[in-house]
Amino acid sequence: MDQQYILEQKAWIDKEIYKGIEQATSEGRLRDSILYSMRAGGKRLRPLLMKNTFDSFTKKNASYISAAIALEMIHTYSLIHDDLPAMDDDDTRRGMKTNHREFDEATAILAGDSLLTMSFETISSDENLSSEEKVFLIKELSRAAGPRGMVSGQMWDMEYENQETDVDTLKTIHLNKTGRLIAFSMVAGGYLAGVGAKKIEKLRRAGEAVGLIFQIQDDILDVTGDKDKLGKPVGSDETNEKSTYPKLMGLEGAKQEKRKYEEEVDSLLKDLQAENTPLAELIAYMSQREY
Amino acid sequence: MDQQYILEQKAWIDKEIYKGIEQATSEGRLRDSILYSMRAGGKRLRPLLMKNTFDSFTKKNASYISAAIALEMIHTYSLIHDDLPAMDDDDTRRGMKTNHREFDEATAILAGDSLLTMSFETISSDENLSSEEKVFLIKELSRAAGPRGMVSGQMWDMEYENQETDVDTLKTIHLNKTGRLIAFSMVAGGYLAGVGAKKIEKLRRAGEAVGLIFQIQDDILDVTGDKDKLGKPVGSDETNEKSTYPKLMGLEGAKQEKRKYEEEVDSLLKDLQAENTPLAELIAYMSQREY
Repeated sequence: MDQQYILEQKAWIDKEIYKGIEQATSEGRLRDSILYSMRAGGKRLRPLLMKNTFDSFTKKNASYISAAIALEMIHTYSLIHDDLPAMDDDDTRRGMKTNHREFDEATAILAGDSLLTMSFETISSDENLSSEEKVFLIKELSRAAGPRGMVSGQMWDMEYENQETDVDTLKTIHLNKTGRLIAFSMVAGGYLAGVGAKKIEKLRRAGEAVGLIFQIQDDILDVTGDKDKLGKPVGSDETNEKSTYPKLMGLEGAKQEKRKYEEEVDSLLKDLQAENTPLAELIAYMSQREY
Repeated sequence: MDQQYILEQKAWIDKEIYKGIEQATSEGRLRDSILYSMRAGGKRLRPLLMKNTFDSFTKKNASYISAAIALEMIHTYSLIHDDLPAMDDDDTRRGMKTNHREFDEATAILAGDSLLTMSFETISSDENLSSEEKVFLIKELSRAAGPRGMVSGQMWDMEYENQETDVDTLKTIHLNKTGRLIAFSMVAGGYLAGVGAKKIEKLRRAGEAVGLIFQIQDDILDVTGDKDKLGKPVGSDETNEKSTYPKLMGLEGAKQEKRKYEEEVDSLLKDLQAENTPLAELIAYMSQREY
């Protein structure tokens, strides 16, 4: 899977996202703030995972667009709220000011609330999905994003800040904070492609492992990465006293841990007869990414 | 409609709400914070409006419970986020500490995010509703709560803070900030009772008017109310330099404005052949409430 392909798909997803937001908002500062964060250089890996899962199991026309937009809206809302002064207190993200620094805290809170609400509006209003499909997607997405999923991950992340953690705790945090939404992208892609319940559970397990791979690679890049490619300073986890895989297991230990999850994913994709698919290629690309 | 009836219904709704929250969260600080705000003395007027609308049009068994819980979750999330230091910066609500004062800002932000997410999970997981019913409710609720509804009202409310406003602007703010969710309670109650599309639009208009009545009465009570009944100081709008109906129209003007909306509601309820129903009684009760 080459960079060019990723960029083309990303451009297409971006266009769909901006269209969706303009339909669901009125002109003004709130829309500006929502669009600002949606435009702020996201890699769109979650929508890409959904698309490539779908394409790996069917030749049907794309029916995942609203689910992909909804997922990216939820991902973006979580970044806006995580960056707030009361949370991680970040001034920049991907080389741009964070939402509350570009606008203000109140606007950032409401932009996040808007995106979270719009994600469910987007799926429920999609005329190309059946009611059963919409309900499946909304149930899955709300569970992945809510207080037994992503939000709990963020809550624990803060509760364990500046505390000694072990690898198991770190895994639980990332599984919820990152893994659940990434798993949703593969569950939704497979479900809409018409894959059965047993295969969906395998896609979910693979997606959770992909989430951990993604996070471990993030931690590794913070040690070994190239500042210019990353668009952020290297070594910031060390400075922020954040628990990371390299810190708990050493750099080699972290790479081995990542390898463990890569093997799990490979084995699940083999079970799913999806080892030579765009999905497998994309996951390999994500696992080796340099930014 | 007497106080006793309201309290009985409220107790029943409360029980359903707490059950719903325990199912959708894990033990810990986040759940404690969510339950704290859900228990903080809400009047449950929105669920009551939904129930009484439903009961006014059908004798069927209650099928609105998840929608009522979802609505109250969204109402509560909006209060938690509105109270934050970056927004209205309130330390107390109904005589209790606000969520971020009892817990902390980060927890309050995440408790609000959780409730908003759980509201859609609650409807989508209700085994007593058809997929069509769930999709209708989620679409309506997300539109009422999102950046063309409640969130936009809160955004404008802040943008117009300490600015001169006129009655039209004030009406637009309250229609969105309060009216849209109250209208949802009547739209959902009527829809689940099996009322047709034309009647649903009348219920929506009546609900928006009820929202304005509710808000004007709030403003009036801030001038004429009894501190002990209200559980909050009287005259705080004056102190906070908030735009209110009595300030823009005088106390008598505000009462007349409220009367105008009461007449609109009466006329709509007559059209709906619902003038002698529990719904009409509840609206009259809300309009005259002393706290």
